[in-house]
Amino acid sequence: MNNTIDAGNSSGCESLGGARLSLRRMRIDTYHENVAYMHKDCEIYRAEGFKALSKVEVRTNGHSVLATLNVVDNGDLLACNELGLSDAAFKQLGLEPGELVTVSQADPPESIQALHRKLAGERLGLDDFRAIIHDVAEHHYSKIELTAFVVATNRDELDREEVYYLTQAMIEAGRHLDWKERVVVDKHCIGGIPGNRTSMLIVPIVAAHGMVCPKTSSRAITSPSGTADTMEVLANVELSFEKMAEIVQSHHGCLTWGGTAQLSPADDVLISVERPLSLDSPAQMVASILSKKVSAGSTHLVLDIPIGPTAKVRSMPEAQRLRRLFEYVAGRLKLSLDVVISDGRQPIGYGIGPVLEARDVMRVLENDPRAPMDLRQKSLRLAGRLIEFSPDVRGGDGFAIARDILDSGRALAKMNDIIAAQGARAFDHNDLTLGPLTFDVRAERAGVVSGIDNFQLARIARFAGAPKVPNAGVDLARKLGEEVQTGDLLYRVHALYPSDLQFARNACEKSMGYTIGSAADVPHAFVEF
Amino acid sequence: MNNTIDAGNSSGCESLGGARLSLRRMRIDTYHENVAYMHKDCEIYRAEGFKALSKVEVRTNGHSVLATLNVVDNGDLLACNELGLSDAAFKQLGLEPGELVTVSQADPPESIQALHRKLAGERLGLDDFRAIIHDVAEHHYSKIELTAFVVATNRDELDREEVYYLTQAMIEAGRHLDWKERVVVDKHCIGGIPGNRTSMLIVPIVAAHGMVCPKTSSRAITSPSGTADTMEVLANVELSFEKMAEIVQSHHGCLTWGGTAQLSPADDVLISVERPLSLDSPAQMVASILSKKVSAGSTHLVLDIPIGPTAKVRSMPEAQRLRRLFEYVAGRLKLSLDVVISDGRQPIGYGIGPVLEARDVMRVLENDPRAPMDLRQKSLRLAGRLIEFSPDVRGGDGFAIARDILDSGRALAKMNDIIAAQGARAFDHNDLTLGPLTFDVRAERAGVVSGIDNFQLARIARFAGAPKVPNAGVDLARKLGEEVQTGDLLYRVHALYPSDLQFARNACEKSMGYTIGSAADVPHAFVEF
Repeated sequence: MNNTIDAGNSSGCESLGGARLSLRRMRIDTYHENVAYMHKDCEIYRAEGFKALSKVEVRTNGHSVLATLNVVDNGDLLACNELGLSDAAFKQLGLEPGELVTVSQADPPESIQALHRKLAGERLGLDDFRAIIHDVAEHHYSKIELTAFVVATNRDELDREEVYYLTQAMIEAGRHLDWKERVVVDKHCIGGIPGNRTSMLIVPIVAAHGMVCPKTSSRAITSPSGTADTMEVLANVELSFEKMAEIVQSHHGCLTWGGTAQLSPADDVLISVERPLSLDSPAQMVASILSKKVSAGSTHLVLDIPIGPTAKVRSMPEAQRLRRLFEYVAGRLKLSLDVVISDGRQPIGYGIGPVLEARDVMRVLENDPRAPMDLRQKSLRLAGRLIEFSPDVRGGDGFAIARDILDSGRALAKMNDIIAAQGARAFDHNDLTLGPLTFDVRAERAGVVSGIDNFQLARIARFAGAPKVPNAGVDLARKLGEEVQTGDLLYRVHALYPSDLQFARNACEKSMGYTIGSAADVPHAFVEF
Repeated sequence: MNNTIDAGNSSGCESLGGARLSLRRMRIDTYHENVAYMHKDCEIYRAEGFKALSKVEVRTNGHSVLATLNVVDNGDLLACNELGLSDAAFKQLGLEPGELVTVSQADPPESIQALHRKLAGERLGLDDFRAIIHDVAEHHYSKIELTAFVVATNRDELDREEVYYLTQAMIEAGRHLDWKERVVVDKHCIGGIPGNRTSMLIVPIVAAHGMVCPKTSSRAITSPSGTADTMEVLANVELSFEKMAEIVQSHHGCLTWGGTAQLSPADDVLISVERPLSLDSPAQMVASILSKKVSAGSTHLVLDIPIGPTAKVRSMPEAQRLRRLFEYVAGRLKLSLDVVISDGRQPIGYGIGPVLEARDVMRVLENDPRAPMDLRQKSLRLAGRLIEFSPDVRGGDGFAIARDILDSGRALAKMNDIIAAQGARAFDHNDLTLGPLTFDVRAERAGVVSGIDNFQLARIARFAGAPKVPNAGVDLARKLGEEVQTGDLLYRVHALYPSDLQFARNACEKSMGYTIGSAADVPHAFVEF
């Protein structure tokens, strides 16, 4: 490692590009934004007239990285002849500490012109989106620029052809998996419904039917558990692509973590600003979901859009608009898509949180009488739709085929094979260790459960520690339409840490998430598919 | 100063809020974003489940600040029991290093709900804007949230009543100057035209006429010189309000730096994200300009909107739309406004850069035959409009009155009084020391100057070092419509540093900013007021 320092001509950067700084890893995690740190007395800083938040390019033979500048006035953090980089930027540059780098004012990424046109309300073409998404994936955009792109493409700012361009550009910026199969099926839900772990039932059912379903799922971003988090209770989910391919070869299915960065790296970066803004526009949803599915090698997809008063989609017209957008873009991408609009009025199953959800899934697979019927029914219907992608299955027969596979124990056997292949973890749903700190939420009056707020229950489960604490969460005792007496248990909250329990309790005190009314108050379920 | 450290219960933050960290000033300039730094092994960080980019609240009795979290994995930067703050955040908190603070997940600022409604396309009310602008001014918004607000209120997102609400909210968030005068006049240009230093002529003219004109100007943000930068060549511009008031009392006028933060603190914060995006929407322009004018105590304003192919406003319909928006909001604010649409086809005067512009201004004041006629004429016309705000001046007489004041030397005498009162600096425009490194840009063919690109000339002057290097910049030798022979000088670039000269030369090579054509190619001047 080269530790010599060459701060250049001491009379003040007399020759352009002659002065170099010694690279330093700051070990500061600035998330998806690259940040460079320079000392305020650094000669290059003074000579170039950078300002805080200037975009700079850090370079040495063949390696370069763009970063936003923070100016440091503290010799303990950084010497005058050093250039510090935040963690992600340091890794991208791929050099050793102490190597000599040059720093210059960065030209704005080329695609910024296209971003400005979109900000001015213009329509962009495929090449514009390619340029923008390339720069996003390469971390060339600052947080400000990323946010501007996300807000300027929010709501009705993109027409459907532009949504296709965005999706196509996101696909091209990522890795593409090839399963060497004619039909590769997948199922996806747009999210927002706690406990909705249908994938963990659908994959063993359709794999038992002989269809290839290499399911990669995400971890929770804002929810109390993602499918990957729940599956991780039962088995390892972080597998190499080679290992996954081997498991799919043997068992037709798998349930692993997507490690999304490779499949749609731009999406990961965009989510880093969409999440703090709670932005989830149709265009961004379609591009994010379909780009990952196509990159993951899926040819046939069933998409689940739940509707309900506290679901992401709250009315049938809205669901239909979203369905048509998904269908249009999928058509342009040559992806076979079957959209299902489902009942999103309340959480699915009883458990919310990784361990509680894994319990529900295993009870369904084992045909346990305590199994949540709504999870079973929804999974069978979705699996049936996937099975109907087989050319030899008649429309309408899928459900019965799926039910036979589940009832006969073939789905459970397939799930056990997949768990064993991925690497089983010790878990016995008949002998659960849940978070030991609990409190109960009870009905304050008699009546009928006429509302369960998906968002608030998810929030409470997160405060309780899920998914970081796998056995924390919320266990529902009553579902929509059930009668309750004053004092009846509605749900129990499990936590591991007292502070988590207190956070959850505070959230419950603001709003318990249950409404007790009369049978007539129960909202109409628009859908039964 | 208390340097004891109490990292709380070592078994992991058992009691809520019990654990405290020792405050550390990181001396990192993150511009207008508050950043907090925690060590990744800090118990509070681990117990609370913060993520990088979480918003946290740092607090101790009575003091608190919101900041975005960066996670540090380096004991040299920060110990496990320390909480670091970026410079601005440290100053806002107003505590000493080593004091004990608590850190908690911050509730989102209350106005975030209103921001979400705007992102969803809703119309906001005055109280919504008040809440948002309050949070912006108090640095409660992250860069992501600021950008979302700026982009969501860009273009046609706000109706004119909402623009009034935004302006009113910005006024309420700032300090208000009271000059104890019935009529306080001011003049403002929306910007974009290099060399446009009319204020330095208008103020002495109208002050000599006896009108009160306490002019506060900005420094350059993206331009090669602001009025404050150019005036600083001649006199001190950073004066206390008390000193300004004393000068205005004695001389009726002043030309100082606005120190904008106090007059419209929210505007300063918003500009920190608008600038990197080159966003300058009508709504933001109106709110920014009018909020500062009202806060500065102006009662009567002349507003200059230049039109030209490379000006901010490029067509008459666009100028008229902008004029009506300014007039509507000014009317709601009870500010008397006279909008003037002017010729913005090229820079005003010859010099671009502080010293060169100061030279032009002094030549006009001294009625020097080398004075740029366009600067003289435009200043007289604008000053005439201001003079017509006097109840005893007939409409149409203002220009002649202004011309008499200038030609008689009374404007020069007034300017010299103001310069002396503010504190004169050594400057002799007949014995200039310009940046010693120069290059000339010459006509490559014979013809008529048919285009001068405001934006490119400003860019070249900035690369040459202006305004940071006051005597750097561009000195124009030819203006629109003038005939040139091949090899004739078009302009000369002055710089102090070789690297600056090279940057400017590179910019000239990409585009020199001059078009040589025929007389018929000279764009039509829409306006002559």
